[in-house]
Amino acid sequence: MTRFAHSVSALRSSEIRDLMSLATAPDIISFAGGMPGNELFPLETVDKIYNSLTDKEKQVAMQYGPTSGLPSLLESLSGYLEKKGLPVKKNRLMLTTGSLQAIHILAKAFIDAGDNILVETPSFIGALSAFRSYEANMITVPLNGDGMDISQLKMRLETVQQKPKFLYYAPNFHNPAGIIYSMDVKRQMIELLRNQDIPVIEDDVYSDLYFYEEDIPKMQLLKAMDPERIDVCFTGSFSKILGPGLRLGWMLVPEHIYMKAELIKQSIDACSPSISQVIADKFIRGGYLETYTADVREEYKKRGLAMIEALEKHLPAYTSFEKPRGGFYTWIKLPEGTDSAVILRKAIEKGVVFVTGKTFDPDGVKNDYMRVSFCNTDVETINKGIPIMAEAIREVCG
Amino acid sequence: MTRFAHSVSALRSSEIRDLMSLATAPDIISFAGGMPGNELFPLETVDKIYNSLTDKEKQVAMQYGPTSGLPSLLESLSGYLEKKGLPVKKNRLMLTTGSLQAIHILAKAFIDAGDNILVETPSFIGALSAFRSYEANMITVPLNGDGMDISQLKMRLETVQQKPKFLYYAPNFHNPAGIIYSMDVKRQMIELLRNQDIPVIEDDVYSDLYFYEEDIPKMQLLKAMDPERIDVCFTGSFSKILGPGLRLGWMLVPEHIYMKAELIKQSIDACSPSISQVIADKFIRGGYLETYTADVREEYKKRGLAMIEALEKHLPAYTSFEKPRGGFYTWIKLPEGTDSAVILRKAIEKGVVFVTGKTFDPDGVKNDYMRVSFCNTDVETINKGIPIMAEAIREVCG
Repeated sequence: MTRFAHSVSALRSSEIRDLMSLATAPDIISFAGGMPGNELFPLETVDKIYNSLTDKEKQVAMQYGPTSGLPSLLESLSGYLEKKGLPVKKNRLMLTTGSLQAIHILAKAFIDAGDNILVETPSFIGALSAFRSYEANMITVPLNGDGMDISQLKMRLETVQQKPKFLYYAPNFHNPAGIIYSMDVKRQMIELLRNQDIPVIEDDVYSDLYFYEEDIPKMQLLKAMDPERIDVCFTGSFSKILGPGLRLGWMLVPEHIYMKAELIKQSIDACSPSISQVIADKFIRGGYLETYTADVREEYKKRGLAMIEALEKHLPAYTSFEKPRGGFYTWIKLPEGTDSAVILRKAIEKGVVFVTGKTFDPDGVKNDYMRVSFCNTDVETINKGIPIMAEAIREVCG
Repeated sequence: MTRFAHSVSALRSSEIRDLMSLATAPDIISFAGGMPGNELFPLETVDKIYNSLTDKEKQVAMQYGPTSGLPSLLESLSGYLEKKGLPVKKNRLMLTTGSLQAIHILAKAFIDAGDNILVETPSFIGALSAFRSYEANMITVPLNGDGMDISQLKMRLETVQQKPKFLYYAPNFHNPAGIIYSMDVKRQMIELLRNQDIPVIEDDVYSDLYFYEEDIPKMQLLKAMDPERIDVCFTGSFSKILGPGLRLGWMLVPEHIYMKAELIKQSIDACSPSISQVIADKFIRGGYLETYTADVREEYKKRGLAMIEALEKHLPAYTSFEKPRGGFYTWIKLPEGTDSAVILRKAIEKGVVFVTGKTFDPDGVKNDYMRVSFCNTDVETINKGIPIMAEAIREVCG
């Protein structure tokens, strides 16, 4: 079996795993992966950091650390989060093995089988898999271009029989929808949730990857707004601003939630990788975080704008998409009822891959969208791949 | 508050966390930690490995990898496990974020709240915390010097109302009991479990750290014995043979269990740290695993023998302990009904710390034992600390 045939047949058995492997296959153009481009990692900086480590620091890197994280990184990361306006001192910070682990730990802390939770549709696949693994009953709130549909959220809150254990949402450069929440929507969310005793899990891993500085004010986090009488559990990650291979994220949560979360983390992996923490700490303290994110921001902007241009030029008029203003993704709306899996199979035959919409539907049904990433393909490849993808759409939808 | 006072008062609030921090406090002699000595890590080898990495390999180290692990490490690790006689080809191998994560994943795969499981008493605290986090009902089987008490296991199996979901055990250089299971006990376990549909979780992280080659034959793993009609889930770790800061372990399990485990891992952290996997792979392929474990084996043997000698010289006659033949721990039996927490407080006042027995009791009650590690104190420190600890025992027990 060829590598290509292997990719195609494997797709049927386990979509996620194989999209990961497709995304790195050499002979296919991948708009599928949600990972930074390999060529964008700050290898020279990591070399510099590694070679500057003392023996004592290397010993720390090889040893167990505290469950909450290495003290030095907790301190440097606090500085980074405070610059985002987050109330670090009023909360507890914990390093986690990727931000997915932070979400998983919160899921385990809050969900008993059958419990209601509120999630966006579409939503991040990793979070959905964590929620499913605890048998949550996911009540969906649809997304508009400026955030979740507030009237729908209101209706869900009014009609739901058992109070949802939390609301999970991603405010900035949403995966997969690509949108930024407006301040207005966030304020209305606060109004609706105040005094309801429904915590919010706020998942923010892309907000450093904005294309336009003018968007910064409206990207203010709910956690930074520090709403009274709402427990906001903030989660974030080094995956997009340093490297996902380190498996390093964090949660910033109120003390009473932290106590539960720490016990759970002790039972999952005791502590996050020290070697990653030592590197991330030096990365922040050396000032590399700012310079590196400034660099990749420019590159992702180039790719995002090239993606917009190519989509506008090649997509059929019956499709539409929200123009990304940052992050990794575009989210293309197909004619209602289209099965994007059929388009995906056509596209793979032609040598292009993306992710089908239903992957991000909490109910796993609605498939008339497709997620098209621009994060790990350069401009030239985008310009080569998008016409092919558009052709696959036309062959299926006419 | 002084560092010392802080340690003492903190001990009350969270024993484990603080034992970790006590173990690294500069002014206290610690027989508490279950971690390798900092001075024993193979820093030069890791330097050599890091500096030999190509840019492509560094990119792999910074990127997401497959949920099951990097293919190159799966291959090299398979070679290492095959040398232990494990049936790698008949099973599926998965890299995990420490072997604790492997145990946690299996706990999540098997346990519904209230389910019975079979565990040794005493048992590894990390596994107990994972089992507790899924609200397992732990049915305990006491340990003798040659493994679990077979007549007790038989009785539990005969009298238990609902079939246990699995049996969890650690065959070699048990944490905390320090014992090696005899072949005879393992054979009787197989007899009792055959056709019962009760899987075994076999946790083996210390077996490379034997003092005597003559013990190798009797350390044969249940997984290597490959008993028919028993699903054996084997878990292991790089923590003791390279460095726990990498957070890297594994499970080797039958295909039908693997399928569940992979889905769970996807929802916990998507994949284990790639940076650790790249280093571990080179560590195996470079032949360093053999030379390094040979080196530390010698050092741990020195420490273990010094510990035996010091304990025999200084402990009161009413205590007893099994002489360790490998691993990290001695397990001291105090007069029945002694509260080792009282001894611990005395010992901390004198500047020595160990771990109380009840920490390892699944019921969290029985406290007339103490775990005394020799892994991260050198011979000189052992000779200095053991008389002090013996004094604390005498002051409490007379």
